[in-house]
Formats: sequence, C-alpha cells, structure tokens
Amino acid sequence: MESRPLTRHDSMNNPLVRPPNYQAVEQPSHSAASVNGLRQKSNLDDDDIHHNPPPGSSSGSGGAMDPPQGHQMTVTYDGDSEGYVSFAGGSGSNNTFHLDSDEQEFPGIGQYDDFHTIDWQRDVARDRMRHRHIIKKRDDSAWDWIKSGHDAWSGWLCVFLVGVIAGAFAGMIDIGTSWMSDLRFGICPEAFWFNQEQCCWSSNETFYDGDNCSNWYSWPEVFGHEPNGAGAYIISYIFYILWSLLFASLAASLVMMFAPYACGSGIPEIKTILSGFIIRGYLGKWTLLIKSLGMILAVSAGLSLGKEGPLVHVACCIGNIFSYAFPKYGKNEAKKREILSAAAAVGVSVAFGAPIGGVLFSLEEASYYFPLKTLWRSFFAALVAAFVLRSINPFGNEHSVLFYVEYNKPWIFIELVPFIILGVIGGIIGMLFIKFNIKWCRFRKTSLMGQYPRLEVLIVTLITAFIAYPNPYTRMNTSNLIYLLFSQCGVANNDNLCTPGSSLRSNRVSLVDVFPAGPKPASLPSSDYQRNFTNVNTAIEIAAAGPGVLQAVWLLALALIFKCVVTVFTFGIKVPCGLFIPSLAMGSIIGRLVGIGMEQLAYNYPEWAVFAGECSTGENCITPGLYAMVGAAAVLGGVTRMTVSLVVIMFELTGGVRYIVPLMAAVMASKWIGDAFGREGIYDAHIILNGYPFLDSKEEFSHTTLANDVMKPGKNESFYVITQDSMTLDDVEQLLRETDHNGFPVVVSRQSQYLVGFVARRDLNIAISQAKKTTEGIVGESIVLFTSSVPSPWMGPPPLRLRKILDLAPITITDHTPMETVVDMFRKLGLRQTLVTHNGRLLGIITKKDVLRHIKFLESEDPESVLFN
Amino acid sequence: MESRPLTRHDSMNNPLVRPPNYQAVEQPSHSAASVNGLRQKSNLDDDDIHHNPPPGSSSGSGGAMDPPQGHQMTVTYDGDSEGYVSFAGGSGSNNTFHLDSDEQEFPGIGQYDDFHTIDWQRDVARDRMRHRHIIKKRDDSAWDWIKSGHDAWSGWLCVFLVGVIAGAFAGMIDIGTSWMSDLRFGICPEAFWFNQEQCCWSSNETFYDGDNCSNWYSWPEVFGHEPNGAGAYIISYIFYILWSLLFASLAASLVMMFAPYACGSGIPEIKTILSGFIIRGYLGKWTLLIKSLGMILAVSAGLSLGKEGPLVHVACCIGNIFSYAFPKYGKNEAKKREILSAAAAVGVSVAFGAPIGGVLFSLEEASYYFPLKTLWRSFFAALVAAFVLRSINPFGNEHSVLFYVEYNKPWIFIELVPFIILGVIGGIIGMLFIKFNIKWCRFRKTSLMGQYPRLEVLIVTLITAFIAYPNPYTRMNTSNLIYLLFSQCGVANNDNLCTPGSSLRSNRVSLVDVFPAGPKPASLPSSDYQRNFTNVNTAIEIAAAGPGVLQAVWLLALALIFKCVVTVFTFGIKVPCGLFIPSLAMGSIIGRLVGIGMEQLAYNYPEWAVFAGECSTGENCITPGLYAMVGAAAVLGGVTRMTVSLVVIMFELTGGVRYIVPLMAAVMASKWIGDAFGREGIYDAHIILNGYPFLDSKEEFSHTTLANDVMKPGKNESFYVITQDSMTLDDVEQLLRETDHNGFPVVVSRQSQYLVGFVARRDLNIAISQAKKTTEGIVGESIVLFTSSVPSPWMGPPPLRLRKILDLAPITITDHTPMETVVDMFRKLGLRQTLVTHNGRLLGIITKKDVLRHIKFLESEDPESVLFN
Repeated sequence: MESRPLTRHDSMNNPLVRPPNYQAVEQPSHSAASVNGLRQKSNLDDDDIHHNPPPGSSSGSGGAMDPPQGHQMTVTYDGDSEGYVSFAGGSGSNNTFHLDSDEQEFPGIGQYDDFHTIDWQRDVARDRMRHRHIIKKRDDSAWDWIKSGHDAWSGWLCVFLVGVIAGAFAGMIDIGTSWMSDLRFGICPEAFWFNQEQCCWSSNETFYDGDNCSNWYSWPEVFGHEPNGAGAYIISYIFYILWSLLFASLAASLVMMFAPYACGSGIPEIKTILSGFIIRGYLGKWTLLIKSLGMILAVSAGLSLGKEGPLVHVACCIGNIFSYAFPKYGKNEAKKREILSAAAAVGVSVAFGAPIGGVLFSLEEASYYFPLKTLWRSFFAALVAAFVLRSINPFGNEHSVLFYVEYNKPWIFIELVPFIILGVIGGIIGMLFIKFNIKWCRFRKTSLMGQYPRLEVLIVTLITAFIAYPNPYTRMNTSNLIYLLFSQCGVANNDNLCTPGSSLRSNRVSLVDVFPAGPKPASLPSSDYQRNFTNVNTAIEIAAAGPGVLQAVWLLALALIFKCVVTVFTFGIKVPCGLFIPSLAMGSIIGRLVGIGMEQLAYNYPEWAVFAGECSTGENCITPGLYAMVGAAAVLGGVTRMTVSLVVIMFELTGGVRYIVPLMAAVMASKWIGDAFGREGIYDAHIILNGYPFLDSKEEFSHTTLANDVMKPGKNESFYVITQDSMTLDDVEQLLRETDHNGFPVVVSRQSQYLVGFVARRDLNIAISQAKKTTEGIVGESIVLFTSSVPSPWMGPPPLRLRKILDLAPITITDHTPMETVVDMFRKLGLRQTLVTHNGRLLGIITKKDVLRHIKFLESEDPESVLFN
Repeated sequence: MESRPLTRHDSMNNPLVRPPNYQAVEQPSHSAASVNGLRQKSNLDDDDIHHNPPPGSSSGSGGAMDPPQGHQMTVTYDGDSEGYVSFAGGSGSNNTFHLDSDEQEFPGIGQYDDFHTIDWQRDVARDRMRHRHIIKKRDDSAWDWIKSGHDAWSGWLCVFLVGVIAGAFAGMIDIGTSWMSDLRFGICPEAFWFNQEQCCWSSNETFYDGDNCSNWYSWPEVFGHEPNGAGAYIISYIFYILWSLLFASLAASLVMMFAPYACGSGIPEIKTILSGFIIRGYLGKWTLLIKSLGMILAVSAGLSLGKEGPLVHVACCIGNIFSYAFPKYGKNEAKKREILSAAAAVGVSVAFGAPIGGVLFSLEEASYYFPLKTLWRSFFAALVAAFVLRSINPFGNEHSVLFYVEYNKPWIFIELVPFIILGVIGGIIGMLFIKFNIKWCRFRKTSLMGQYPRLEVLIVTLITAFIAYPNPYTRMNTSNLIYLLFSQCGVANNDNLCTPGSSLRSNRVSLVDVFPAGPKPASLPSSDYQRNFTNVNTAIEIAAAGPGVLQAVWLLALALIFKCVVTVFTFGIKVPCGLFIPSLAMGSIIGRLVGIGMEQLAYNYPEWAVFAGECSTGENCITPGLYAMVGAAAVLGGVTRMTVSLVVIMFELTGGVRYIVPLMAAVMASKWIGDAFGREGIYDAHIILNGYPFLDSKEEFSHTTLANDVMKPGKNESFYVITQDSMTLDDVEQLLRETDHNGFPVVVSRQSQYLVGFVARRDLNIAISQAKKTTEGIVGESIVLFTSSVPSPWMGPPPLRLRKILDLAPITITDHTPMETVVDMFRKLGLRQTLVTHNGRLLGIITKKDVLRHIKFLESEDPESVLFN
C-alpha cells in the first residue's frame, strides 16, 4: 500500500485535513460508548468536595478573611495570562489569533480554586514566559530596564523582608510570652509592663537572683499577705489557675471568632500547601495576627505546648503576605512556594536561633521542591531573621533562645551506650505519643466533644494548671525547665542545681527559685550535690548525690508522667499549639534522669574499666546536662522523625561540633525504632487524619500495578472528552453542568480519540463567560473550536475559538507504565493529572487524587479518606 | 460511521488484529521515506565516540584497571535482569514466555557501556523490582529473612564503611604530607619517619616551639654546616628545590604510568558521573591508590595546590569500591550514585573536619539527585568519617584540620562594609582566575605542550620552588600559612604574630619560625605589634603596628601575586591537585591585609562614630584573623560559586555561630559579582572545557523552542525504527550494523508509526547473540517479534521473540511541548531519551545529547563541543 507523502507540518497544523478512512481506525470500547455517553455520570472524580459552583469566584470555604481572596479577581499584571496563553498556543504558526495582544485575554486564567491542587509545570512555564517577556523588553527603555532589575532581585528582597519581619514578630512574641507568664505569679507595680526579670533589673540589683527582688510583688504580697505561708500558697495557687483559665479562654475565643485556621501547629497544613495545594486564608493576615496573639496567650496559660511550631506558621503567613508585594510570586502559586519554603526555614531559625537547622528543617521536613535557588534564599532569610531576633535580644543573653548552653567536657566513648538507650526510649515514647494523640484526635472528630472546643480548652487548662502548680518543675515555664535541665554544673553556672549546699537542709536554696516561679513554697526539695568549689581553678569534682537529688529525681519523674499524659490531650485543642517544646521537655527530663544515674555510677564505681581513663582523676567526667539534651533530641526525633535538621538544631544550641556524634546516635536510634512501629511522624499522621492530598516523597511506592489499573474511567464507565471541532457551545456547557471534573481532554474526534490537548474546567468556564460578553454572535449553536484555523468556507453562527486556553503539551504516559514511575512523575514534575494513551489513542486520565486513593487502596486503607483534590 | 466495539484489552494485547483499512491512516512524510530508508545514514546521533563495537564487551577506553570491568560479564545475581524484564513486559497477560524463569535470561542486560548516559527511571525500576522480589521471599525461610535484613541495612553499612575507610585514608594522607613536607627542610636522624613536630616531641621538649629542638637536623646541619649563614641558606635552598622536583616528578610519573584518571581535582568528573554518566575506571582502586600517593607527593613538592578537592575523589573511589560489596548498589548505576553522593560528603567532611558542610557540599555542588534518604546517609557517613579522622588525630590538636580557629571577639556592624568589599574582591579574583585558567587549559589541550605533561610538571615545580623559598610566607606549607593568617591575636595564642615584641629589633622572634620552615634565615621581618600582655585578665589592647608589620604586609602582598599567578598554571597539570587550599590562601592574604588596615584605622581614629561604641574602651575591637577567614571564603566562593556549603564549612572551622553573617555577606557578594561576569564556577567551566554531557540543574532554560525544533530526525532525514512483527533478523542486524544509535523505537508498522515501545541497542545485541546460541532454528529469515503472542498459524522459520527486552513504557512527549518542560523532565526524571509524538504517531526522538547540543546552539556556542552521550 503506497502511503501518501504528507509532511509532518501538514498533519500537525491541519488536523482537519483527514484521509477519508480516518474514522475507521480501531478504538477502545469505552470511547465508542462515550459518543452518546456525555450525560452519564462517570466516577472520573478529580473533583473537589469544596468546589465552589460559580466559576471565577474565589471565596474560600474556611478562613474568611484572607488577602488572596480579593486579589484573584483583580489581575492587573499584563504579562500574566498572556504568558500562559502563549505557552499553550505558541506553536500554531498560522494562528489567526494574535497572541501578543492584550485583547482577548481572560483574567483569572491560570489561577486555582480553593482546595485544589496546583499544576507546577504550568505555573513554572507561565513564570518563565513572564520572565522572557521582561528580558525581551529590557532594552526598550530605562523604565523597563529598572523593571527587569527589580524582577531579578525581587526574590532576594522578598525573603529579606520576610526575615526581618519574622525576626521582629518572634522577638515580640518572646517578650510578650515572658511578661504574660510572669503575670500569673505577680506584678511589677512600678511598671506593670515589665516581667519579673526586667522589674528586678530596674531596682539596681545588678544580678538577677530569684526572689530576692523587692520591686516585684507576688499576688499574695499585692493583697497585703506575707509572701510565705500556707495562705499565700493558696492565694498564689488560685491566681495561677485563674490567670491560666483567662489566657486560655481568650486564646480559644480569638481563634474561634477571627481565624479558625490559627489553631494547632500548622506544620501539617504547611507541608500540604508546599506540596502544591491551595488553602485560601490559611496563610492570611488574620491568621498571622490571631496566631501570634493566641500563641502568647496559650503559652502563658501554662498549657503543655510550645510556640516553636506555630512560629513556622507565622513565618509562612508573613512570607505569603509579602509575596503579594511581588507579582512574580504573589500571582504564581508554584513560585510562591519558593518564598514559603524560605519562610519555613525562617520560622525554625527564629524559634531555635538555628539558621542552618532551619534551612535543613525546610529541606527535610517541610518542603516538597527545594531547588538550589531556594536553598540559598532560605539560608539568607534564616540568617537575616536570626540576626534581627538577636538584635532585639528578647532573653538578654546574646542568644535567640533561652536554652542556649555550652558544655566544656568532652563525652567519653562508653557514654554512647546510654545515649543510644535514650534514643530507643525516645523512639518508643514518640511512637506511643503519636498513637494516642491520633486516637484522641479521631475521637474528638467523631464524638460530640468536637462541638465544644472552647469548653475542651478550659477543661484541659484547668486540669493542667491544677496539677502543674504543686510540682515546681511543671509550674515553671517549660522553656525554663528545659534550660535548667540542659545546663551543666560548673563554676560559671550559678544554678542552684549545682551550687554547693551546706549539710543543713534549711539553708539550701531551692532548685527552682532561680526562676520566676511564684512565691517560695514552704518546703521544696533541692537537687544539690555534696560538692565544694573552693576557687576558680579547681576542677569540678565528681560528687555523691544528697537526699535532695533523690527527691528531685522523684519530682522529675512525676513531671515526666504528667507531661506525657497531658500533652497527648493538649496537642489538637483549638489554640495555637506546638509540639517541639513539650517533646523537648519530656526528653530532657528522661535524659537528665539517665544522666544523674550515670554520674552516680561513675562516682561510685570509678574503678570500672569503662570509666578508668577519664573519671579516675576525680574530675567530673559525666555531664548530666548533655544527657538531657540528647534525650530531648531523641524524643523530638521520635515524635517528628526529623534527623539531620534536628541534630543541627541541637548542635546550634550548643557551642561545639563535638556533641554531634551523641546527638546523631540518639536521633538515629530513635528514628529507626519509631519507623519500625509506624512510618509516619506526627505531622504526617495528622495529614492522613485530616485527609489532605499529600503525596509523600519519602515513601517508596512498592507495588506492581500499572497505569492501566489506576486510570479513570474504569470498565463500564464513560469518559468525558471534548472534540476539537464538532461540539457546540450548548454541548460544552451541558458537559460542564453535568460533570464536576476539573478538566477535559480534547481529542480529534470522538471516534478516533487522538489526543490534541487538555483544557481545565476553570479556564473553560472563564473563557466562555468572557466570550459571551465580548464576542458578538456567540449563540448556543456556535461550534467550539480548538483548532488553530477556521475552515475557510464557514457556515452557521460564528465559532467560539478556544485554542488559547488549550494546553497542547499535556503530560502523557502509556497504559503499560508502572505506577511507580507514574508516582515518581507526579512527585518530581508536580503534576495535577496525566493522560493515559495506548498506541496514541487516549484511554483515560490519572489525577493526583486517583494516585492517592490507589496508594490507600493498596495499603488496605479506606480510599475515601482522601478528601480534597 | 459506526465504530466497532472493541475492548481496550483487545487492542492492547493483540496489535496484530487490525481493521482492514489500518494502513491508510495519514502519516508524516519521513516515516514514508523511511520505509526504504533503512540504509540511509541519519544524524540521529545519540551515539558515543568511544563506542566499543563488540556488544557485551565492557573494557573501558581509559583507566585500564578498574573493578567494574571484570564484574560486568559475571552477573550472578539472579533477580537482576529478571527484574528489568518483568518491568518491561510484565503486563502482557497472555505472554507465552514466562517471565519468572531463569531460562531465556540475557546476562548483561541493564548494564551500560563506557562513556554512556544512564537511564535513571529504568535503573530505579530495576531496583524496586529486586526489592519486591526480596520482600516477597522474606517469609520463605530464615535465610531469606536474613537476606532481606541485610538488604535493608546494606545502604547504611556501606556508607558506614566508606566513612571509616575514608577517615583512615585522610588521616594517613595528612600524616604522610606533613612528614614529606618537612623532609624538604631537614630530617630526624633518630627516627627518620618522624616529622619535625614529632621529632621534637620525642626529645622531651613538652611544648613544640619552632626551631628550638636539638633532635631535628636541617639539611645544612646534616652535612656538618652551621644552621645559620649564607652557605646554609644556599644549601637549604638547593635541597628545597631538589626535593620538590623529586616529589613532583614521582607524582607525575605515578599518575601517567598507573592511573591517568588520578590527575586533577576530580570534582568536575564526579559531578558528571553523579549526573548519570559512566566513566569506567575513574573511581577504581588504582585511581584511589595513585591519587592518594600522588596527592601526598604533589603537596609535599610545595606546588600551589591542595589535597582537599582530591579527597572528594578519593572518598568517591572508596564509595565505588565498597558499593561492589553490595550488589544492590554495585550492579545498579542509579543506586550506586546514592553511595557516591554520600562519599562526596565524606570527602569534604574529612578535608575540613566539617560534616555538615560536607553534606551541604554534596547537596549544593556535587550531587544531581539528592533524595532525603541520601541526605541522612550522607550525614551519617560524614560524621563517622570525621569521628575516625579525629581519633587518628593527625594534627595533634583535637581537630581534623590544621586551621581550626576560635575567636572571642564579636564583630561590629560597621565591619560589614569591609566584609562586603572582600566579597567583591573575591568575586573578581575568582572570575579572573577561572578565565585565565580555562584559557591556559585550552592552550594546553590544543598546543604541543599537552604532549609533554611530565616536563610541564617539572617546569612548574621548578619555578614554584625557586620563587617560593625566599619569601617565608610562600615557603611554608600553604595550610600552615592559612592557619597563621586565620589566627587571632590573644593571650592564649602564642603565634609570634601577636606576641609582644620589645623595641629591640634583634630580639624579635620571626613570624614564620613557629612553623617548620627550614633553617632560620639571617634577617626576617616580623609583624609584631607594640603591645604588652601583663596578666591573664587584661583585655587585649589595640596597638599600633610596628615597622615589622609593614614589612610583613609587603611580603604578604608579594605572596598573593605569586599565588595568584602560579595557581593559574598549576591547576590542570598532570598531578592530583585541588583548588580549595590555594583559593583559601589567596583569600586569607587579602583578608588579613584588609584586616590589618581596619585595625590600624580603629587604632588611629577611635573617635570615629562607627568605632565609638566598641573600640573606645581601648580594647581591640577588630580581629584581623576573622578578615582572613572572610576573605578566604570570598575567594573560594568566587572560584567555585559555592554558597551555603562554603559558609557552613567556614563556620565549622570556627567555634561559633556568630560569624555566619560576615561570611554570608562576603560569600553572597562574591557569588553575585562572579555570576555577573560568567555563570560557571571553575568546576562547571572544566566540565564545559572537557565536553562532558552535564545538564546543569542550576541553569534555567529560557528559550521558547519546542520539542519539534530539537528532535531528530530533522527535515529530509530518515528515521530508523523497528516494526513489531515484520522485520527479519537480517533486517535488524543490518540496521544495527549500519547505524550507531543507542536504541530504536518499536512501532506497530512502518506506515502507521504507532509507538509500541523502545529497545536499547545494547540489549538487542545481547539478546540476538544469546538467542542464536540457545534457540534452535533461528536463521536470518526469522521474523523478529515484539508482540506478546505469536499468531497461531505460524509459517516460516521460528520467530525470534524479544518482547522481554522491550521497554513498553518509554517516556513520550508531544511535539508541542516547550523545550523548557523537556529539559525539566530530563533533569528531574533522569531520562536518557524521550520519544516525540503527534496525535499518537511517532515523529522522532530527543536524546540528552540533543538537548545539550540544542542548549549550546541557542547560546551561540559550538554544539559539537558536546562529546559523549
């Protein structure tokens, strides 16, 4: 059979010119069925349960007051949609539409509805087109040259601003928290806005030394009571509980009234957003404001939660808000995520004063795509933020965190054994914590309790405050507790934990009195050692523990149990609450206990071979504070499953490189133990609990299914496609009304199913309504044309030409492609959907939701738990 | 026209069942042309200039003695090729071949020839198949359970071993270098294997204090001369030059005779290998051995080069060698690159004692794909290596590098100005260095000089030694120079740079005498300050510079010029040579000079507002050592264009977090300035110079071309395809003989050009030769069948069935796909080629080489400079 010598361009630009026997080509059954199957309901459900029916509307279903909202309808940047249009139709050489014109632009094209997945490839292509446009115009005028310069550095400027503002926010939050926390214990009558430390500074007492400050009035004193005694204790207790309840209810009310998205840690949602999902208002200005305020209140209420996780959310809000100052980022969801990745790094940087750790946190835990450019910018922003925070100096110690410590003893090799044991314990605690917390959260979701969130907050606060007050370790601020436990005993350290106590019990200074922990209780244990420092040059001798240490050990053990239990119920209540600090606190208690045990072991058995080298000299060879730090890292690692970033954060908290090995050993042990029982960290577990469409890039897809098995339509389902030149406007509008798919493949004809391109539902809606307004003669019988040219003798009403909004380069795969490759492509290319072909004919479509459901199905979980797309 | 209701599976598994009018479908012209165009030469040249004609042979064209060599022909692991085969053909449900059998396996399938690009998707799929196989068999027996456990932890074990061995290698290299370097100045007669420091230690002089050691004999002393005086100076000079020449010629001879791949830095090649390219023998055991030895010799020869870059190569060699102990990595090129990425981190970790910096170096500079798992393993390996190296303690200072320093002064805000100026200078120097070095290397390649590499080494050594000796700053080991310049003046520091000099010039101790720099020259300048330390508690006062400082400044300036010039000619000679140390040295000289200037400014004008706060107390507020460090980072940043990793490496060299901001400011300024003049760092420039097929993931593709414009065949070229059921073995063998493509698309028929799959040339060759041996009745007229079943009444000789080696899921794109998306897919998915279709019909192919050439073409460079594929 002689084949007609057709050039490549012939067939490409003129799909209307077909050989006469074109339609007779073999085709799959369902495409034949779909000829008349337009009105059948298919379950090609790349839909969205939160779908907002009026196309072009952008009101989010949650979080009412977000900046993106108003923005979406006011696209003013003229290179924006043009960019995408040129990309889509840029190759049709004989296009009758001119693509460089400002006419025929459809504002809003390329945007997304709320709770939808973004298409990275498309967004990145749009940005490149925009960039090319600017570069091309650069030499036209001085103004264009400046614009191009501004465009080039706007990414750096944006992350710089984010760093500065996030640093300032963190400083204010730190100061506010410290003031409000002290308010529960007393007040500075001279200047009520001072916290206890500042109050005592101003009273000319150079060294801040616990309760010995006449300017600060505890509540019993305010009411004319003696500062000591049973009555004062009760008054203090009551004030402590009342203030806590006040703060907590304020926090919960603010969150519920103004910004429901401000509750919780925010990291699961930020992970989901960074993986390419739209949650409007989640990073808005109201969320920012309420989260910052609520965080101060919740921490001051003495709840078992921290402000470090929520700081990541706050930084991301700042990143989101600033990105709107730069259209390059504000109007392009894929580009905006570059700023958000940097903002996540900034959040951890200011939370722990650890810029490198922050960058690694963003890389390891938060971000989905982390190109090198983002790495550089994240690092820059994290540094700027840390610098700003240190300049604000909220703790008066030249560091950005309260619990910055320096050790001066190296560790010895045998200590690796307790470190690894700490890691194992941390892994087990983390695993149990995740399990119970998820169970409780699921119970909250399904039971009546979820309907009274404010009551829940009040009950948790009441119980926490009631139990916490009697135990000095739980009464104090959790950050202070962590710092106390991290500290080493040494000459320069004037913690009471390490100062020499005389043998007289009454003379002992309480361990907790160095911190603003309210009026001195009548009888407090002390964890002092029988140790004497004679002068500066004496080495610290190892010492036997006195009875005070034993009592402290007991109290710490009780505090540990309390923290473990109460945190399970706290994480998830409707106030801003982070997990870092409670986890670190649990871990540091365990670590300190193990450390004290090791110390006493080394003291009592210095002749053991393992201690022989270092401990025989009588010097203290064990640093219990280091154990506390290792334990803290282990538990936090068990809860979050972070590794490298966690080690680096802890390493940045200490002065030296030499403690990396102990930290690494514990964190790795913790991760391995935790992973053995359940792969997900707490954030991933909450993502699954909430049904977010998050395609984890850490999990390997290990099944043997093919694209064929996953794609929609399945057997006996009809497949909705649009033909390039034979459907009328009425047909298309009916299709849009009767299906809720997010997009439709465009084919040459319904019989042949040769794929031409892909058109998004949203773009189609906008284009149609726009065309009805602007183009004359468009009626229901108008043919919708996706071809590049109109056949020359055109009969009937004027056609509606939509090649502009057609994506001519959809990603396609063959039906034999293994799903592991498909999952890989979804992850690496950031796809929203891919089309499945066999020998060139369109067979079906796979959306991100299909992939997620398929993974759930293979893991014998409920595929319907994936909620959004 | 009514369409026949054909089910999807019908058409899929039985492509032979076609409607009668199948062949009449429109087709592009070139496919018609290629019906008879089988013998025409096309320029679809995804070929390889180093292609080894006999298929299955694996001898590399360079580096003769590599471990991969023998391995390739002895595939013993039974899940290996099976894995790939199942992947390719696993979906044909009515396959007559059983895929789980050990019969009909083709050993060597899935391997690559030398100088070829790997296919990541295919390799990763193979590994997952292998993994699934192990998981499935796990519960069969205890032995299988152990095997699966071993498989699970083999990655960790492998990087652990790499860390340990690389740490040990680095320690030995450090010790060897230190001994050999001292050999140029003298010898320890009691124990010739001691270097000067050890020699003096053994002589009961507790503190090593320069020349005051009776055990160490300088060469004049060995020959009975006085240690001082003109005669001694000349003898020392001659010995210095002779030893240098001896070492250099030894290094060059070793490299040329045993391992030509051992020369240079190795980082450009490692970047290329990590991006998915095969260079057999580049990471072999001979390269490892010769590179380690040659490095010691070259550094000891006093050449202006370092051992830090080559240590990365050494670590990668170790990684490669160990990966062969674990078939999971040794037999899978994509998986092996995970180990190599970790090894690159190990290399930097041991080079600078900076484990975190090493990981970031691997992430930022070396690696192409860096999944989280690799991050964790890299970090683990880097830590292990640093730990091992510190245990070996080659420098006797508890650190893994000579130039570890700690500063105790914070920097002041105004200092950011000189820091940024240093960054700008660093960027300019880096840019100039790259330019001149590349010019010289190009001249070397094209001129006669390249044919006498050993002579070149000798000449460079002679000139270096001759000029270096008179100047004490160039005479000393470059690492020592860097340490000297980094050091701060302080109480604990007993460098002569900072000790109080009396006003008597003759009493001054020379700056350089603290280092083993040979016999004391008659008159040496000293850079002391007029400063007095009375006791430990006095703050360091700021001091005026004496005349000695002025002279030192002059000598340093001369040293700087010398280093700059000689390094341009040194980097590229045929010995192992790294760039880190010379760059750091240049930078630290500049930095120290600027620092001394700033110090004197602060001393002379303490009343200036900018110095007012910190410098008015009379304390020294400027640390010139910090300037040296900042300058070093700036120049190294300008040369290599590293940012985050460089800052972290420098930060790990100092004790504290607070110097990150100055370092960052300088490095960022340096990168921006450098990038303004030329985007490539030195490594990328050398990659381009050598024509390696490296698709840079940092560069954005900013053009508007489409896949259509890039794909082969172009117009008027014929396209070689294989049909699935109509070509005879003779046809196929002729095709293989007459073309040199690396693979062929398989289509339904030559008229329709519907894509079925893709078959690699190498696999085809192996399968055919295997089939000829094992299957009876295969003759030249046998039809080569790629279909899943044989039509039931089969006439003629038995067919050769090759569906097993057919990749049924090749990545395809449409002809309208913008090239930026194509480049993105190549980068992110690690493709070797992609097929271009239009409406399902195969139009052409794009290989990685096509992409690289296209980029070159668009940048107006010579596309033919891309050599390999």
